[in-house]
Amino acid sequence: MRPSGIVTLLTDFGTADAYVGVMKGVMLGIDRGLRIVDLTHAVPPQAVRVGALLLRQAVTHFPAGTVHLAVVDPGVGSARRPVLAVCDTGYLVGPDNGLLAPAAAVLGVREVRALENPRYFRAPVSRTFHGRDIFAPVAAHLAFGTPPEACGPPLTALAPLSLPEPAVTAGGIAGEVLYVDRFGNLITNIDAGLLARFRGGTLSVTICQTLVAGPVAAYAAVPGATPLAIVGSWGTLEIAVRDGNAADYFAAAAGTPVTVAWEPGNE
Amino acid sequence: MRPSGIVTLLTDFGTADAYVGVMKGVMLGIDRGLRIVDLTHAVPPQAVRVGALLLRQAVTHFPAGTVHLAVVDPGVGSARRPVLAVCDTGYLVGPDNGLLAPAAAVLGVREVRALENPRYFRAPVSRTFHGRDIFAPVAAHLAFGTPPEACGPPLTALAPLSLPEPAVTAGGIAGEVLYVDRFGNLITNIDAGLLARFRGGTLSVTICQTLVAGPVAAYAAVPGATPLAIVGSWGTLEIAVRDGNAADYFAAAAGTPVTVAWEPGNE
Amino acid sequence: MRPSGIVTLLTDFGTADAYVGVMKGVMLGIDRGLRIVDLTHAVPPQAVRVGALLLRQAVTHFPAGTVHLAVVDPGVGSARRPVLAVCDTGYLVGPDNGLLAPAAAVLGVREVRALENPRYFRAPVSRTFHGRDIFAPVAAHLAFGTPPEACGPPLTALAPLSLPEPAVTAGGIAGEVLYVDRFGNLITNIDAGLLARFRGGTLSVTICQTLVAGPVAAYAAVPGATPLAIVGSWGTLEIAVRDGNAADYFAAAAGTPVTVAWEPGNE
Repeated sequence: MRPSGIVTLLTDFGTADAYVGVMKGVMLGIDRGLRIVDLTHAVPPQAVRVGALLLRQAVTHFPAGTVHLAVVDPGVGSARRPVLAVCDTGYLVGPDNGLLAPAAAVLGVREVRALENPRYFRAPVSRTFHGRDIFAPVAAHLAFGTPPEACGPPLTALAPLSLPEPAVTAGGIAGEVLYVDRFGNLITNIDAGLLARFRGGTLSVTICQTLVAGPVAAYAAVPGATPLAIVGSWGTLEIAVRDGNAADYFAAAAGTPVTVAWEPGNE
Repeated sequence: MRPSGIVTLLTDFGTADAYVGVMKGVMLGIDRGLRIVDLTHAVPPQAVRVGALLLRQAVTHFPAGTVHLAVVDPGVGSARRPVLAVCDTGYLVGPDNGLLAPAAAVLGVREVRALENPRYFRAPVSRTFHGRDIFAPVAAHLAFGTPPEACGPPLTALAPLSLPEPAVTAGGIAGEVLYVDRFGNLITNIDAGLLARFRGGTLSVTICQTLVAGPVAAYAAVPGATPLAIVGSWGTLEIAVRDGNAADYFAAAAGTPVTVAWEPGNE
Repeated sequence: MRPSGIVTLLTDFGTADAYVGVMKGVMLGIDRGLRIVDLTHAVPPQAVRVGALLLRQAVTHFPAGTVHLAVVDPGVGSARRPVLAVCDTGYLVGPDNGLLAPAAAVLGVREVRALENPRYFRAPVSRTFHGRDIFAPVAAHLAFGTPPEACGPPLTALAPLSLPEPAVTAGGIAGEVLYVDRFGNLITNIDAGLLARFRGGTLSVTICQTLVAGPVAAYAAVPGATPLAIVGSWGTLEIAVRDGNAADYFAAAAGTPVTVAWEPGNE
């Protein structure tokens, strides 16, 4: 895999301070030709799981050889390791606190390395901003073509992240909301492949004691202001309200249970 | 018109989720050399008119051959068509729900085409995110040099958008606020060309029963915290408060009436 | 110093309107090859001092020859001058209202020029948006290689900005909070070099009648939810709360006093 010259950024730094701009300055100082793409900087402060979900959802849409730089790093300056994961179709760089693990799983991990070679760091390394001093310069060097083995010694694996898995029975699926997006859509952990196991009958989706329409084929299948279930752009079941906001409608949030019941026969 | 290699993005996706980053990944996968410029992603969810106004205001400032990709798309997955407008000085790509029409009018429409050729789509096309699956890849292909006629068959026109027009009499102009910007400036639908019809007399501008200073030549023409009218950067009459916020001052919003009265003679 | 081809942007325009996108369109119309990097657009409206602090903090992280374009411009259209500062390691472009002075000081000013040559302006120049009509096109021309002397006549100096300086005695330092970042970290005006003058004894840091831990070497030196002092990424003393928000914890803001007391001997 050759580097694509693209670096993506995902952080909890917000965009009101200049921290993200500073990281870009450091990277462009290493390679002026880099293409830098913001994924999001609005991960809630120190919310490693939210960052991990958004990173996993985004990385598959980039060309092979892209370097994905992610920093949600409550342990900066402590014993948590800065790491690099070389994957089948990209590189992941960030703190080894679970943030990278779900994305690495979908990209296919080949090897993991600790970032220990100070030659690729900004000097001096601060106590509070490894995004600027370690992760950004390493990402830029990787995108420029520095071989991963130059960055540090191999590790056996990334630190894992525990994500809630749906429970599956013959009668259906008990899942939950993983993420609420800007539109108030409730993205669940029930993926399309799992739904596809239940064929030849009727599926009914319930959230907050409410049976919603669907899974439907398009928002337009229901009237306005009506809740529905649909396989959305994340490839999972989503609860939405047509021309509305499902999070507000149901007062739902990450963790809210969503169930899919299957009845055979009368499809 | 040759493509400029620049693609602009305007959406209601916000920047907290990674949807915009994902669209950029899809586009860079088609052409790594694209220049991608964000216009705004803070259009209120599904507010087609606000998106249309911001798009119209922005497009004239880009080089000829720029592809403007806009997605405010409450009807995604329904019968509304994905379209392309080839204009005198740029391309517009998005849903055919009125969003593109005002920008097309200022850029000069040459032809409109339905986006029907799946060769330029991401596969599979999801039910909820045509920004990623149709509009972004088509925009990238156009910017890369794909001829518009390859994208789909011609249509007679874009779906129109109705915008409030000012009423003009011999005694003046009855307009309204179209948009409130970040500073609380009230951008009206009374453009400079219309004002210029009233010469050789005195113009007086009223909003919310208050006569404001001007039209003035600069904010500095009035003391601090004072309301005024000025021809602003949109090329239209704006109501502002010097070193303040006119929307707060007047409790005004889109739709608030603004009148310009003309008295001959004593200029 | 040759231009790096990079232009940074710092404004109080927000990102909901398309004003920033429009400035980028104007610049790319002059040089399609420019690299444009956002520092921040969330400076509070007309808050020149906040803009100046963020600009000063960011500029040193960019390659030499970068053009830094900053617009926080309450006096637009008045007598305040549009200016250019040629510095040892970069260019600064913006209104001469104090915004550029702190950054110029850290970059090393060589010469200051008034922007008076309309050849490098967008025509016509509006009364309210010099960011688009003067600063953006001049910045793009500079980044493209236009010599500074072509932009206008020399001035003796930039308009200064008064920033609060810490008071230093034999017994310690009386400083204050300069800036609160997204994490609620309280960045003070007590820099690391000043702290280093107090050696061989004990430093104790107090804010809001509370003695905090440190200066510590890492957040991890204290338990969660505990306040601490640390030399942060700005190179100054910061007050933080581990895994928390110091601004909320102390109800502190810019201007809140922070003192460092020194006792000799028992280190």
